[in-house]
Amino acid sequence: MTKRKEEVIYQGRILDLARETHLMPDQREARFEIVRHPGGAAALPVLSDGRLILIRQFRPAANDFIYEVPAGRLEPGEDGAACIGRELIEEIGYAANKIEPLDWVYSTPGFCTERIHLFLASELSPAEIAHEPDEFIEPQILSLNDALAMIENGQIRDAKTQICLLRYALRKMQRS
Amino acid sequence: MTKRKEEVIYQGRILDLARETHLMPDQREARFEIVRHPGGAAALPVLSDGRLILIRQFRPAANDFIYEVPAGRLEPGEDGAACIGRELIEEIGYAANKIEPLDWVYSTPGFCTERIHLFLASELSPAEIAHEPDEFIEPQILSLNDALAMIENGQIRDAKTQICLLRYALRKMQRS
Repeated sequence: MTKRKEEVIYQGRILDLARETHLMPDQREARFEIVRHPGGAAALPVLSDGRLILIRQFRPAANDFIYEVPAGRLEPGEDGAACIGRELIEEIGYAANKIEPLDWVYSTPGFCTERIHLFLASELSPAEIAHEPDEFIEPQILSLNDALAMIENGQIRDAKTQICLLRYALRKMQRS
Repeated sequence: MTKRKEEVIYQGRILDLARETHLMPDQREARFEIVRHPGGAAALPVLSDGRLILIRQFRPAANDFIYEVPAGRLEPGEDGAACIGRELIEEIGYAANKIEPLDWVYSTPGFCTERIHLFLASELSPAEIAHEPDEFIEPQILSLNDALAMIENGQIRDAKTQICLLRYALRKMQRS
């Protein structure tokens, strides 16, 4: 809409980087560095007893093992629900019979196009885990109260994971 | 810790891009594309009557005007509270006497180092707005209930903004 010029600097395996020139509302041109990402999907898996499943995995960008909800990148043409159904099997070894959309969010819209589609996953049944070679993932089963405490004390620091947990908690509180 | 090699592909104004090779727990090497970002700070401004201030601004990466909490990039050596104090004046024209840390979060740790420091800002007093030339920002005053409804109906889709609002709401509900 407002884009006047673009220069693709890098085309990679999971993201592209571009310099874009946009026409601003005051008719001046401004330049932006934009990371182009295909988007992803993430889900909070809820077991029949109400406990939740998070994963703990090594993230080079954090240089640490961090807690997250299961998540993955969209394949070309794939929708969010199909993507997260696949990722739940690959990452925690459960197939979800019920995948309920929460929303999609921009992870960091100041410089990145990534949209993450968020879901609640329930009616889970065991399936065979099949991690990808660059993933080292440890599932963790915990209560909602424990997960909220882990947000408060800084043990859960992933944005999409906080959003899934907080929206699930708020929904439960509003219904009770 | 696990990094074996790195190749910096791009050094930009607001971010760098690198290809990194890490040694995984099974001793195999895996390659990752990593966006290096200096990090940012964001705050939910709360007026004395309990209403909140969000901003609506054009984001080239979203190709749209979106609602967000005031936020900005950390300058070299700057801490989160100093950064957001500056941004509140620049973006909404208020100086905050009270800046209470919520947490920091990874915006998208699968490929980006960005950490966003989150705050609640209160005891606000008017100051002169001073937008940067590439920012077109419209402040919006609204109630917490209206903001939560805008999350539910998909009008607020920025991850850091959802986290600030949801954590503030949950805190208020737990105290009442």
